[in-house]
Amino acid sequence: MKTQRLDKIINRLLEKGLEQMVICDPCSVFYLTGTMIKPGERMLALYINKDRTRDRIFINELFTVNEDLGVEKVWFDDNTDAAELLSEYTDKSKPLGIDKKFEARFLLRLMELNCASGYVNASECVDTVRQQKDAEEVEFMRAASKINDLAMSEIIKRISSGVTEEEISSQMMDIYKSFGAEGYSFEPLVGFGESAAIGHYEGGARKLKEGDCVLIDVGCVKDGYCSDMTRTFFYKSVTDEHRKVYEIVKKAQQAAINMIKPGVRFCDIDRTARDIITQAGYGEKFTHRLGHFIGIECHEFGDVSVKNESRAKPGMIFSIEPGIYLEGDVGVRIEDLVMVTESGVEVLNSFTKELTLLD
Amino acid sequence: MKTQRLDKIINRLLEKGLEQMVICDPCSVFYLTGTMIKPGERMLALYINKDRTRDRIFINELFTVNEDLGVEKVWFDDNTDAAELLSEYTDKSKPLGIDKKFEARFLLRLMELNCASGYVNASECVDTVRQQKDAEEVEFMRAASKINDLAMSEIIKRISSGVTEEEISSQMMDIYKSFGAEGYSFEPLVGFGESAAIGHYEGGARKLKEGDCVLIDVGCVKDGYCSDMTRTFFYKSVTDEHRKVYEIVKKAQQAAINMIKPGVRFCDIDRTARDIITQAGYGEKFTHRLGHFIGIECHEFGDVSVKNESRAKPGMIFSIEPGIYLEGDVGVRIEDLVMVTESGVEVLNSFTKELTLLD
Repeated sequence: MKTQRLDKIINRLLEKGLEQMVICDPCSVFYLTGTMIKPGERMLALYINKDRTRDRIFINELFTVNEDLGVEKVWFDDNTDAAELLSEYTDKSKPLGIDKKFEARFLLRLMELNCASGYVNASECVDTVRQQKDAEEVEFMRAASKINDLAMSEIIKRISSGVTEEEISSQMMDIYKSFGAEGYSFEPLVGFGESAAIGHYEGGARKLKEGDCVLIDVGCVKDGYCSDMTRTFFYKSVTDEHRKVYEIVKKAQQAAINMIKPGVRFCDIDRTARDIITQAGYGEKFTHRLGHFIGIECHEFGDVSVKNESRAKPGMIFSIEPGIYLEGDVGVRIEDLVMVTESGVEVLNSFTKELTLLD
Repeated sequence: MKTQRLDKIINRLLEKGLEQMVICDPCSVFYLTGTMIKPGERMLALYINKDRTRDRIFINELFTVNEDLGVEKVWFDDNTDAAELLSEYTDKSKPLGIDKKFEARFLLRLMELNCASGYVNASECVDTVRQQKDAEEVEFMRAASKINDLAMSEIIKRISSGVTEEEISSQMMDIYKSFGAEGYSFEPLVGFGESAAIGHYEGGARKLKEGDCVLIDVGCVKDGYCSDMTRTFFYKSVTDEHRKVYEIVKKAQQAAINMIKPGVRFCDIDRTARDIITQAGYGEKFTHRLGHFIGIECHEFGDVSVKNESRAKPGMIFSIEPGIYLEGDVGVRIEDLVMVTESGVEVLNSFTKELTLLD
């Protein structure tokens, strides 16, 4: 196991009064072992204990995992009660931290078996450690965002009159693969004109015409780590109001980025962007939080929102993505991934944010 | 809600001594409401009670669900404790059935809130009802398998000397879409020669050469329902031993299909195929169960295995997929989806199972 990462998690558990935990989220298992195991309907459980000699990972033998995971593997088959097997290793006299994603079929069974003195959702102990990327992770995150910059340059070459949103989004996978990415971090979101104002719109048969905005929100996975970037272009021409909206979003995004450094509260980062949009008269049209944490998963624990009063720490990576959505008309969003450094911020994307007309 | 389906589930719950349940599996919610809602990290919960006036579905307002689901929607936002909201509707004095997939973050919170007198994994009550497809579902399953037959005919046209497994599998999505499918029911499994002997092998850069077997295990989704079929071909020529292996698998598969009718135990169906393979000397090379149930999900509750002593009932749909895997040499698997009828069996696939040399 990645010992430094595990040490940090154990420390968090101890602060919470816990000495043992079951981790099941494949992304957290990947974080600690370097291996992604997708168990489907089977149980995957990494049991950790402050007494490190008791750590074990429980894997169904259907999954071929030849790698050394740095922790002893306990194999089981479909004829075995995997939760019962796990219960033989837990300290029954102590409370057990539980991964937030552990499924009821396994948790209820552990409870039946009285495998601990209590059960506590302890995912925060893992998730807060995962928030602060270490040096190895930072390199992966930079590489994934670099590919995203290149892919954005490539996809906009395919924009032409009459093309549909689907035709554009369906080309993204090949572009990503040509740059060495493994796949999507999420399905591409491509919206033209009024479609761009719809939340989580994945693109349809809407054809591009002059004056449309072109919103492209895309991300890839490289070496297990995610990128995520949005740019909004205009096709051939832009109205004065659309330009005004664009510049407000751009200003809000830059102001938020500019204030990021260790110690700044996430709610204040959100507020900075939101205030600019609100003062310009579009506050109600900015309908979502300013950003989300990202890493092994595209949406990780933590966000940049009015309700997150925690403070930025070095190594945290998250999106800054204000938007203004005018129903039936236009949607503008500008998104970069940023990392908190020791003294300020590093923007992981370098694709231009100047208003660009595509032709 | 689909009342007949819900009635059956409530009856199962009552048999188990339960009067209320929380269903969260998006596929089960789709089964009951006709709408697929993928809630990601947010809670999705369909609360059902034998007193039907208390049924509610809890949905995060981030998800646009305009359809009438036949059950009152309770919306919540990210600032709301969704489990607490749900706990206001449960009968605290009675045990609560829990979906096997309900995550610890929500279940532990419901327990903290004392929202029931006990918590029981009650998914079997839903899953056993889902096993027996009704008339509407049968039509969807037939249509999905028909597309799979057509897609198999199409993909084998692309087989040629030197082509790689990945080049073949990467063409499947376009083929499925051209026939009107929505997507994959699982990632295509394409293996040539010795690769075909590896379990769950998704295909790589292995190039096709004469004498290789060509194992293609693919499935699509149509109207929310899955298909799944495997055929094994040989490229240009086949050795006597490979032909022998093929014919054994084919004979085992047909024998299993021939015995299917209401009342037959699944372990006996598995044993029929397994005995034929064992008597031919390849018992240890048939390394998995004979089949799995399928419907809204590619792998649903229930299987055709030595340990499943339950009996076939009309409307049940599952795969029959014996295989022989000779490490470093060849893998042969033949798979159809079949449905138990009132008096026997209907095979949903019609693609030939005669040994075929591709050229």
